[in-house]
Amino acid sequence: MINWDEQERLAEELLTRLFPICRSITGNGLRESLAIIQEYTEFNLVEYPSGTQCFDWQIPDEWNISDAWIKDSSGREIVSFRKNNLHVMGYSEPFHKRLSFDELRPHLHSLPSLPDAIPYRTSYYSRNWGFCLTDRQLGQLDQSDTFEVFIDATLAPGSLSLLESIIGPPESNEYLVSTYCCHPSMANDNLSGVVLTTLLHRLMNQSLKLNKSYRFLILPETIGAIAYLAHHESIMRQSSGGFVVTTCAGPGPFGFKTTFQGNHLIDRVIRQTMREYTVEPVEYPFAPDGSDERQYSSPGFRIPVASITRDKYYEYSFYHTSLDDLSFVTPQNLVSTLRLYWSCIQKLEKESTFRSLNPNGEVQLGRRGLYPQTGGALKQSAAGEGDKIEDGTSDVLTPRQADPVDAITWFLFLADGEHSLLSMAERSGVPFDQLYSIALELEKQGLCSAN
Amino acid sequence: MINWDEQERLAEELLTRLFPICRSITGNGLRESLAIIQEYTEFNLVEYPSGTQCFDWQIPDEWNISDAWIKDSSGREIVSFRKNNLHVMGYSEPFHKRLSFDELRPHLHSLPSLPDAIPYRTSYYSRNWGFCLTDRQLGQLDQSDTFEVFIDATLAPGSLSLLESIIGPPESNEYLVSTYCCHPSMANDNLSGVVLTTLLHRLMNQSLKLNKSYRFLILPETIGAIAYLAHHESIMRQSSGGFVVTTCAGPGPFGFKTTFQGNHLIDRVIRQTMREYTVEPVEYPFAPDGSDERQYSSPGFRIPVASITRDKYYEYSFYHTSLDDLSFVTPQNLVSTLRLYWSCIQKLEKESTFRSLNPNGEVQLGRRGLYPQTGGALKQSAAGEGDKIEDGTSDVLTPRQADPVDAITWFLFLADGEHSLLSMAERSGVPFDQLYSIALELEKQGLCSAN
Amino acid sequence: MINWDEQERLAEELLTRLFPICRSITGNGLRESLAIIQEYTEFNLVEYPSGTQCFDWQIPDEWNISDAWIKDSSGREIVSFRKNNLHVMGYSEPFHKRLSFDELRPHLHSLPSLPDAIPYRTSYYSRNWGFCLTDRQLGQLDQSDTFEVFIDATLAPGSLSLLESIIGPPESNEYLVSTYCCHPSMANDNLSGVVLTTLLHRLMNQSLKLNKSYRFLILPETIGAIAYLAHHESIMRQSSGGFVVTTCAGPGPFGFKTTFQGNHLIDRVIRQTMREYTVEPVEYPFAPDGSDERQYSSPGFRIPVASITRDKYYEYSFYHTSLDDLSFVTPQNLVSTLRLYWSCIQKLEKESTFRSLNPNGEVQLGRRGLYPQTGGALKQSAAGEGDKIEDGTSDVLTPRQADPVDAITWFLFLADGEHSLLSMAERSGVPFDQLYSIALELEKQGLCSAN
Repeated sequence: MINWDEQERLAEELLTRLFPICRSITGNGLRESLAIIQEYTEFNLVEYPSGTQCFDWQIPDEWNISDAWIKDSSGREIVSFRKNNLHVMGYSEPFHKRLSFDELRPHLHSLPSLPDAIPYRTSYYSRNWGFCLTDRQLGQLDQSDTFEVFIDATLAPGSLSLLESIIGPPESNEYLVSTYCCHPSMANDNLSGVVLTTLLHRLMNQSLKLNKSYRFLILPETIGAIAYLAHHESIMRQSSGGFVVTTCAGPGPFGFKTTFQGNHLIDRVIRQTMREYTVEPVEYPFAPDGSDERQYSSPGFRIPVASITRDKYYEYSFYHTSLDDLSFVTPQNLVSTLRLYWSCIQKLEKESTFRSLNPNGEVQLGRRGLYPQTGGALKQSAAGEGDKIEDGTSDVLTPRQADPVDAITWFLFLADGEHSLLSMAERSGVPFDQLYSIALELEKQGLCSAN
Repeated sequence: MINWDEQERLAEELLTRLFPICRSITGNGLRESLAIIQEYTEFNLVEYPSGTQCFDWQIPDEWNISDAWIKDSSGREIVSFRKNNLHVMGYSEPFHKRLSFDELRPHLHSLPSLPDAIPYRTSYYSRNWGFCLTDRQLGQLDQSDTFEVFIDATLAPGSLSLLESIIGPPESNEYLVSTYCCHPSMANDNLSGVVLTTLLHRLMNQSLKLNKSYRFLILPETIGAIAYLAHHESIMRQSSGGFVVTTCAGPGPFGFKTTFQGNHLIDRVIRQTMREYTVEPVEYPFAPDGSDERQYSSPGFRIPVASITRDKYYEYSFYHTSLDDLSFVTPQNLVSTLRLYWSCIQKLEKESTFRSLNPNGEVQLGRRGLYPQTGGALKQSAAGEGDKIEDGTSDVLTPRQADPVDAITWFLFLADGEHSLLSMAERSGVPFDQLYSIALELEKQGLCSAN
Repeated sequence: MINWDEQERLAEELLTRLFPICRSITGNGLRESLAIIQEYTEFNLVEYPSGTQCFDWQIPDEWNISDAWIKDSSGREIVSFRKNNLHVMGYSEPFHKRLSFDELRPHLHSLPSLPDAIPYRTSYYSRNWGFCLTDRQLGQLDQSDTFEVFIDATLAPGSLSLLESIIGPPESNEYLVSTYCCHPSMANDNLSGVVLTTLLHRLMNQSLKLNKSYRFLILPETIGAIAYLAHHESIMRQSSGGFVVTTCAGPGPFGFKTTFQGNHLIDRVIRQTMREYTVEPVEYPFAPDGSDERQYSSPGFRIPVASITRDKYYEYSFYHTSLDDLSFVTPQNLVSTLRLYWSCIQKLEKESTFRSLNPNGEVQLGRRGLYPQTGGALKQSAAGEGDKIEDGTSDVLTPRQADPVDAITWFLFLADGEHSLLSMAERSGVPFDQLYSIALELEKQGLCSAN
């Protein structure tokens, strides 16, 4: 059994350590973050040099930043990178000059709708510089003043960094678990995804004899996924599907963004898991927006990938702002999503098909002690209904169980060599794990065999 | 035309004669009941000896009971088999001993939720004995008293009895109609099923030139169906589907338990019949509980069988108690369900495919007297809407009819050699029998031919 | 761009010129109407002689009428063909006699439910005569009077007239656009259909380089369609589908009668068009009533034809009466339906499949100026939502547009050589024409190619 409290403790620790670092799609902040992740579980660091052609894209120069600020004519720092790394637009080029307000204004970004939030902005592929500040700060600038603008950054050939780990037996179906770690100090988007992926990998690597193979990737969004696909074109085309982990620890409702295919094994596994935990997620039909599903599911690959979210990107007002901080997410919420992913992985691991060895009529369960001896009474209702996950709270999740006689009866009725455990669960309402336990027990008793 | 009043009279007679008999899965009560049925229609008696291996099961010893009672220390009969045969747990072994209340208590069954009901309990495959009594009776027992318990029963090698009849031409598709008759004095579960099956067989045997073949079985539940399947493995595997007749005369709503397949010809025939009679049954998706669908639809056979019910087992509070008596059911309710089954059988009988002999453009109905001579007017709405079956009342059922011009136009439009009469009815809303009459009439006029 | 105001002007002109003419399924009124249509666009006149066998039907004798009236004994004209050609039942045989009221009465038709309406009645295939009058007129007749009845008509061998035009390249898929023009002075049923078909043909003939072939037919209902099918059996069997244009200019809601097939390309094109214009039509599932879909979709042809209506036949109270006149329809309503048909035709014309030439991962839109340079901001919502067509008003219709970046992203994501533009539109919600423009633009840029 997994110690979920321990997972919450680790989640909190990782969130706290990783949050302050200024990450981007390349650079030392990214590298530093990946190194911290490697302290917790085994990943390989991969670096692709700047300038490498990857399909329609090129790995850009590496961006590193030491400091940046805007001072008014009195020398007072008005905006400072050291206070919040969101203040500098990602990939801002080096700059140092005194400017009038009118010259400065086009380089300032704020959010009138959230006057106390610093927005998150980038300019990866178009040389530019900029500062992001709260709308309140912007309003307080003296438009007749002049401003000294300083960005101590470098844009130079280097490399793009990412983490990769393949676990499980090499011959089996391979699934993908991918997340992006290019965002600076924001918690739900996407530190939560990075931490969940780290913990999921750690749990699988430690505690499971795996039946299937899993490719874990922690990489910069878009260019990282494209670079990785370009370097693993043939193997990735054979991927059986997987998950893009993102925005999974907010206080809002669970969400489920489906695969491009819509009713793939990946979708069915997620829907079944949600049913078992009596979670009713907001379902988001696939769209080619969001994250790296845009790359993995592109026409050349069509890998079916889905996401389980908690406050999905685009859907919460603090999205891509400084208000998406450590007070917005909780380790408990993160682990509640981790448990759903864990349950999905369990299903991928155990999915298989069984055949009853007494297919003609019912098996006489009574003489095997699997049926009540006295007949005629109404069967009891299901023992436990499971704990419902209340949205916005951190619960101990318990999947509901079906009545044991119902469960075994359904299993044997459907054990025709055609229904997999997942299709049995979908048809019968009996939880997947309960069916799996029955399968093991009945196999031991010589009543069924794997197909 | 069938005399439905006569069917009600016969139903009442059969219910009255069969109700008092103490039936079980074997024994003389069962045999006596089957003999009464044979007075009404032609069935063959089949006996399988105790000890016969049937797939995973063995035919048990035969159980016969003459008397049973509990007396208190004053010699007063507290519980007596002669008052109600439900007082003795089915398959109770012979017993005679004086017991303290504490020794007796584990052998007493009552229903606290229905304090005036004697529950129905059995112990077929685990040697035991027991008494069932009302919760009120149980509460009145003097716990400091001693009790003389007497069960004058035998459990000895004998046989399992059942009725079988195959009607209709031997070469055609074979359908199954099965019911169970192992329950002692209870009316809806399942004397109603026994009586309906008897009357349905009688009607079909008397009045129809049958196009299809029908295998009728009246047998003890579970072990009877398993034994029959084991003795007719190959022929039963070829069955085209059928009906498990049960709990069909209560005051509650019509129910429809689907086949395992869910949208088989059997389901479609039932759904179409319900639509035509404007009955909206409670639909119960298949589950491997209930009755002998558990055997017939087991992985080794997968015969699609469904049930039309009126107060379905499990769903009414008097289920499996002494309150399910002759005051709970009515002959009228029983015959209302019989009429639905009859209509289903009609559809199985007549289902076929026709081809218009003038498929290009419309047939000129006008010059054949099948269309109004004056054009331009709106067509009249359907002549009769049929009588709605009010749940819980006994109605004369009349299926609704479609406008005659609409009906003939739909028929000719769909008579493409691909739409069967049933699929025509489903698509057009025109009742099946109306389409069948049109087919016969147009065939006579040389406008269509059977495909 | 099409001048829709000009279409309204033409619609008004055609409605006004054609309305007074007494049309029937044959005769000079029909011929005169067809000649007027030929002034506006290129059609060929086709004549089939009386007596020609067409499948199950024969072309009837030609009917021509000069005058008809009923006079009372004082010589006062009570009912007069010259006042309204609906007063005479279509195909009334010549008649001149003095009759008592009782003799006259069976030949009089009125509508008690609409006491001021003259109903429309015909008797094409059964020799008879009749007068239609308002129920108020009927009530005012002096039943003790005698009446002189005069019908100056001829029924004699002649021919059935229709218009035919085939436009577009001969090798491509051929679509059908058919309407009926056999109704006398009624506006919505079916002068509106005749005028819409004329204008649609005129627009397509003038302004489009067509990719597909279109067979336009303007013919008498039923016998005209049957006669045409009988003379073009093989070519019509290969038709790719089409439209039966009818009742399309009333003040009521848009309607959509589906094809027999129900989800054919024709249905999908209509549904997609409706979505784009945010019209929610009343959907009428196919039934073998209505108009010439009864012939085109008959078992021998099964051409998928659908109708877009505005006040569909059967559904408005003035249907087939003198109240369906030029005050009931408007040129604006007619042109609103014309625009929907036009948009459907556009989709048939442009429907094709594209393949991204950069299928692996995303295309880097940014460096091609097709993506915002600054990242991180939420995408803007769609620019325009389009004008909703308010039922019963004449709007300038503008289909809604999707966000340009969304639209291009969806296009490239679905450009896998399997999704046609229509299926892209259905899946993505991006309007068809927007996808088509993107396809042309990206093809020019070398980013995609037709499949």
